[in-house]
Order: sequence, then C-alpha cells, then structure tokens
Amino acid sequence: MMQTDLPRRLAAEALGTFFLVATVVGSGIMADTLTEDVALSLLGNTIPTGAILVVLITVLGPLSGAHFNPAVSLGFALTRALPWRELAPYVAAQVAGGILGTFAAHLMFEMPMLQASATMRTGPAQWFSELVAAFGLMAIILGGLATRANAVPWLVGLYITAAYWFTASTSFANPAVAIARALTDTFSGIRPGDLPGFIVAECLGAALAVWVAGWLWAKRSA
Amino acid sequence: MMQTDLPRRLAAEALGTFFLVATVVGSGIMADTLTEDVALSLLGNTIPTGAILVVLITVLGPLSGAHFNPAVSLGFALTRALPWRELAPYVAAQVAGGILGTFAAHLMFEMPMLQASATMRTGPAQWFSELVAAFGLMAIILGGLATRANAVPWLVGLYITAAYWFTASTSFANPAVAIARALTDTFSGIRPGDLPGFIVAECLGAALAVWVAGWLWAKRSA
Amino acid sequence: MMQTDLPRRLAAEALGTFFLVATVVGSGIMADTLTEDVALSLLGNTIPTGAILVVLITVLGPLSGAHFNPAVSLGFALTRALPWRELAPYVAAQVAGGILGTFAAHLMFEMPMLQASATMRTGPAQWFSELVAAFGLMAIILGGLATRANAVPWLVGLYITAAYWFTASTSFANPAVAIARALTDTFSGIRPGDLPGFIVAECLGAALAVWVAGWLWAKRSA
Amino acid sequence: MMQTDLPRRLAAEALGTFFLVATVVGSGIMADTLTEDVALSLLGNTIPTGAILVVLITVLGPLSGAHFNPAVSLGFALTRALPWRELAPYVAAQVAGGILGTFAAHLMFEMPMLQASATMRTGPAQWFSELVAAFGLMAIILGGLATRANAVPWLVGLYITAAYWFTASTSFANPAVAIARALTDTFSGIRPGDLPGFIVAECLGAALAVWVAGWLWAKRSA
Repeated sequence: MMQTDLPRRLAAEALGTFFLVATVVGSGIMADTLTEDVALSLLGNTIPTGAILVVLITVLGPLSGAHFNPAVSLGFALTRALPWRELAPYVAAQVAGGILGTFAAHLMFEMPMLQASATMRTGPAQWFSELVAAFGLMAIILGGLATRANAVPWLVGLYITAAYWFTASTSFANPAVAIARALTDTFSGIRPGDLPGFIVAECLGAALAVWVAGWLWAKRSA
Repeated sequence: MMQTDLPRRLAAEALGTFFLVATVVGSGIMADTLTEDVALSLLGNTIPTGAILVVLITVLGPLSGAHFNPAVSLGFALTRALPWRELAPYVAAQVAGGILGTFAAHLMFEMPMLQASATMRTGPAQWFSELVAAFGLMAIILGGLATRANAVPWLVGLYITAAYWFTASTSFANPAVAIARALTDTFSGIRPGDLPGFIVAECLGAALAVWVAGWLWAKRSA
Repeated sequence: MMQTDLPRRLAAEALGTFFLVATVVGSGIMADTLTEDVALSLLGNTIPTGAILVVLITVLGPLSGAHFNPAVSLGFALTRALPWRELAPYVAAQVAGGILGTFAAHLMFEMPMLQASATMRTGPAQWFSELVAAFGLMAIILGGLATRANAVPWLVGLYITAAYWFTASTSFANPAVAIARALTDTFSGIRPGDLPGFIVAECLGAALAVWVAGWLWAKRSA
Repeated sequence: MMQTDLPRRLAAEALGTFFLVATVVGSGIMADTLTEDVALSLLGNTIPTGAILVVLITVLGPLSGAHFNPAVSLGFALTRALPWRELAPYVAAQVAGGILGTFAAHLMFEMPMLQASATMRTGPAQWFSELVAAFGLMAIILGGLATRANAVPWLVGLYITAAYWFTASTSFANPAVAIARALTDTFSGIRPGDLPGFIVAECLGAALAVWVAGWLWAKRSA
C-alpha cells in the first residue's frame, strides 16, 4: 500500500462507496425500468455491481485498502490491520459517500432526491443470508490477502456477483451500502426499519470470518 | 502450495464445497423464482457458479488444492499428486461440505431443510454428457497446471460456465455436488436414484483425462 | 509504451475507435432486432462493448495510449501526458475512425449508410449522467495508471460495463463515439442536435477528474 | 512455446477445435431449447463460446499455438510463424476435430448424428461481416503477441464475445468451425452451400490483417 495520509484515505473510502452505491442504485433503477422480468433486472443489477467493484478496489485499494464497508473495516480492526482509532472515521466516510451515491443516482434518473424505501427485508432467513454473505466476503478478502493479494479486486467483484444470487437477501453484506439503500424507494431499496437486523448480521458474519480465517490461513510456525 | 496439515486441508475442501453447493442450489432457487424463462434461470445459475469457482479456487487452492470434487481428487490420486490414503478423507469432507451447502441454501430461502429431488436425469445421453464434462474439467486442470498454474482458478470457472450450456446435463461433473443436489427438490436437483449413473460417468471421464493429459502435456525427455 | 511515430499512433486511434463504434452500433442493432425486451437489448449492447474495450486497449495501448476518446485525450493533454499539439490530430483520427465504424455496422447489417438519429437525449439529468460517467472514466484511467498500469484495459472495459447501467444516458462518455452514434438511427443513436450538451458534459467530467486524481493519487513528496 | 512434436500438436489442434465446436453447437441447442427469445439464445451461445476459448487457448496454446482455425493458421503461415508444410495437417486436424465436436453435441442432446443445416447465411453483407470478423480476430492475435503475449487467450475470448453481436453473421470467422456447423441443423448451423462465401471472406480477412498488423506493430529499426 502507498503511504497515504488520513484525509486522502477517507476521500478514497468516500469516493469508492459513492460509486459503488451509485452503481447499485442506478443500475437497479435502469434495469427495473427496462424490463418486466425480475431475473433480468437482477442480472442488470449484478453485472454492473461486480464490474465496478473490481475497478474501484484496484484503483483505490493502494490508497485506503478499499473497504467501502463498515463490516469489512471492523474485520480489519479485529485483525489489527486498521487502527481502532481510524474505524469511526472510515465508517463515517463510507456512510457519507454511500448516501451521496444514492442522491447522485436519483439526480441522474430525474427522481426526487430524498426517498425512503418501502421494501421489506426482514426475518431470520434474511438475517442468515446476510450473515453468510458477510462471512464469505470477509473470508475471501482475508484468504485472498494471505494467498494472492493482487487478486483481491477480482475476488470481491466475483464473490458479490455470485452472492447476489445465492443469498435470499441479494447479499447487501455492507452496512454503509444498506443505509444508503434505505434512502431509495427503487429496485435495490430496503425499509429503514429493517436496517438494524441487516447491520447486526453483517457485522457478526465479518467477525466470524476473522476468527475462521485466522485459523485457516495461519502462517505455519517454523 | 503452502505446507498445510490435513485437518486444515479437509476444512478447506469442506468449506469450498459448502460455498460451491450453496451457490449452485441457492442461485438456482433465486433464478427459478424470479423468471418464467428457463434460459434466463440457467444464466442466473451459471454466472454465480462460474464466479464463485474462481474465488474459491484462488483462496483455498494453496491450502488443499481446491478440488471440491471426488472425481478430481480421484484424478489427482491417479497422478500421484494426492496420496491414495488421503482420497477417502478428501471425499468425505467434500460430501459433508456439499450437503451442508444444500441445507444452508434451504435455510436462506426459507425452505424445508430435508428434501429429495424429483428431477429425472438419466440415460445414455446424460451419462455421455457427464463423461465429456468431467473429462474436459480434469483435462483443463491438468493442462493448466502444466502450462500456467496460476490461471487454474479462472480456467475452471470459465470451463464450468461453458459446460453448463454445452452439455445436456448442465455439467454436474462432480459426485459430491451431485449428491448434495439430490437433496434439494429445486431447479438444480437430481433424483437420488439417478446418482450412480452420474457418478460412474464422472469418475470415468476424469480417469480418461488423466490418461490423455499425461501424454499430451508430457515433459519432453531431454 | 513502444516508441511509435505519429502516423502509426493516429492509425491506432482510428482503428480502435472504428472497432469500438462498430461494436456499439452493431451490437445495438443485433440486440434490438432479436428481442422485444429492452433490458436484454441493453445487455446485448453492454457485454460486447465492455469486451471489445479490453481487447482494443490491450493491443493498441502500447502504440498510442488507446484513448479512442477526445475527452480522454483532453485529460491527458491537461496532465501533459499528450503534447497539446497532438490533441487535434488525435481527435480527428478518433472522429474519423468512429464515423467509419458506424458505416461498417450499417454495411454489415444491410442498412442505408447515411442516417441521422432521432433519439432524443438531452436535459440536465442526461448531462449530469455524462459528467459523472466521464469523470469516473478519466479518474479510473488515471488511478489505474498510478496504481496498476497493466490493469487499465480491464478497468476501462469493466467501468463502461457498469456505467452503461448506472447512468441514465447509458454512459457515452466519449465525444467521438457520440458523434459517430449521431449518424445511426438505431438502438444506440443520439439526435445530432443533442451532441453539444453531451460533448460539453463529457469534457467537463474528464477535466474535473484530472484535478481530483492529481490530488488523490499524488506521489508523496519525500 | 513448449517443444512439441507434430503428432501432439495436431492432437492439440483437433482436441481444441472439438471442444470449441461442441460448445458452439451444444450451447446453441441448449439455449434455443430453453427460450423463445432469440437475443437470450444468442447470449447463451456467446458466453460459453467466449469462456471456452480462454480456457482452450491457455492450456493448448503452449503446445500447438492453439489456432483451432484454418484462417488463423493461414495467417501464421503468411507471417512464417507456421511452416507452410504444416498448414495442410493443421487444417485437417482442425476440420476433423470440429466435425467430431458437432457429432458429440448431437450425441449429448440425443439428436441424429448426421444432419445438414438449412440456415441460409449468404450475400455481400454476410461476407463483409465475416471479412471484418476474421480481420479483427487475426489483428488482435498478432497485436496481442506483439504487445502482451500471455493475454492472447483472454483477447480472443473477449473479441469473439463481442463479434458474435457486432457482425450480422454472428462472427464465424473460422472455416473449420463453419464446416462443422454446416453439419448441424440447429441454432448455430449454416447451409453447406453457403460455406464457400464464408471461407473465402474469412481467409481474405485474416490475410489482410497480417498485412496491416505487420505495419502497425512493426518493431522499430534501431
């Protein structure tokens, strides 16, 4: 990683989360507008999201680590890769960037800037989905860093591409993105009241992955 | 490959097969729920499967070889890359991980945990499909290892992406995954009674590939 | 970059923009002919465009930088990577290559060579879309060059894949391509009268990205 | 390239063309069976073809060059990379492998082994499409070898992914594959009587690319 001062790292986190959310929300609106077929809408939501993740993590990773995700930042705080004192500023930058991403998508598609989602996403099956999704995400990041670090942008993009489909929740796996998606009443939205369940499950999943990955990819004692 | 003790290698095989099957079964359920168009369902099943394979093989390959597949483990036993005494534990870990993957998919999608598939997949054309599919899979793995080993995760992901469509069986090519898929009565299922034909064809295909690849990519005697 | 004389660099820019526009226009015609579903048409337009960009930038980048885009050439002039005196010839080669690409697509699909688009694409939301699209494109190019230069072909291909869907304008992000697309009355067209708004927004977005990227990925003073 | 004797090189060409054609024909049958939407069928034909090309060229390229295509072999004979005396055996292996690939697809899908296509593909627009497609294919292969040789498998896979959609002929660009596709009366077929026009256009396109690429990517005299 390049030596980067905190303001630029926070800018990288905000800019990355901005483009990530603009892509998730914007492509959801686009896809939903163009077709009646929900599987096709989900495909039109999945492919752009996977693609932009590869791009954003490649160019911003060397600056800030390219978390764009409070659960991932929490995971890195647990592994000591992120100083605990930087966790709060990272999360703030991610949430702020994400919300601006939702606003940008609304502006581009000529929609009211301020919205609240009415899409219900709650219950044990959804929470279990988010736990699995965030566990997998954090595990493949840590596994990737341990085995082939320069592949991580691709690993994350491909993992999310898969997780959109294999989880019942379409794999938010990201509290900052979830908050930003609560502010859009479109394809990718989530009811604000359903956020706590998602956020708790995501943080638990990431923490669990830190524990498992710490054992699985442990350096061998010589 | 990293020096890894057997328990961690078996954990890697189980975890990888778990996520592989959760993806195959989960994305099949998701896609089938969202659309009437079967080609679109297959696409929504194919893209996640190909994507997750690249991810899982990249991060778990350095631990266990990332077979996730008894036919592939058999192939590697035949080439002496896997000690014969480790074949049974590998297969057991793969089957156990795969079955847990089916259960996880059912949990995520709020379905009964225990199911048996009613989807008939039998007859010479299906068996020939599986033989071709497993032959190709084992051949490209061995060819990849002989020519560009770090490309193998991509080769397998892309090969399976193609094989979903060019075989009449949608290319299971994997006995552990087939067993796990017998336990779900959803898009990707297979009738338990049809397993033996699939498993025999898959093992034959992999063994045949070991023989052909051993000649084709042989090191030249100096 | 290879040492290449100006005529070959201009030929590379023209040839690349030719194939880029032939792909955008041709795949738009193909997709639109084959389906009633507009999301599917957009997918049939997106995947080929993203794919051809990776290819063209990989093979032509070492010759000319593979801009294929006056807004990108302007951005590189602003960073001094392209001498100002070469900006006009670059733009001319791009526009000429692009127009020939439209003609080639018409020839391949047995359509009248000379057409003018009737597709309205105007207004603040469209312009904001183009500004965001071109900002992102230039930023990821500069960020890619600063962090992992040999990934740039993939970054651009994946970025445009995403931007097709997350912007309301389907992300032209390229004045030469926009001009060429004004000359086809098919899926990917744009009314000639709407060009100025697009071109201004695209150049502004690219210039803005030069400014932001210059700060974000700045080399640290020792 | 590994030092490989002629029999193994011919086996590599035959095996590669076998899997390429089995994928093109098989995925065409699969896709066409599953959906009424022709754009979706084409997508289900495109994605597997692009994917398998990356795989086959990666693992077989070091053995035989992985042409799988008489027009490409002709191009390499023109550049002296393939000895002229090996052109005929290469072409024979490609055609034989391709025809067996069609037969295998028919077997897998329980269809009559011997068929003749009734799909008309003729006329100047189709021939111009094939000329452009083969020109682009040969150009990107030569450009890739001159700039980043280990990317060639990806370049070809992505180029064909795009060319399926931007040409009116869906880009056969390959005389051996065309001959094999004349023997199937399914989605990807071509009327046997239309072969000569395709083959001539493809060879012309490849030869033209040799000439252009020889100038464009020429080594600079010191």
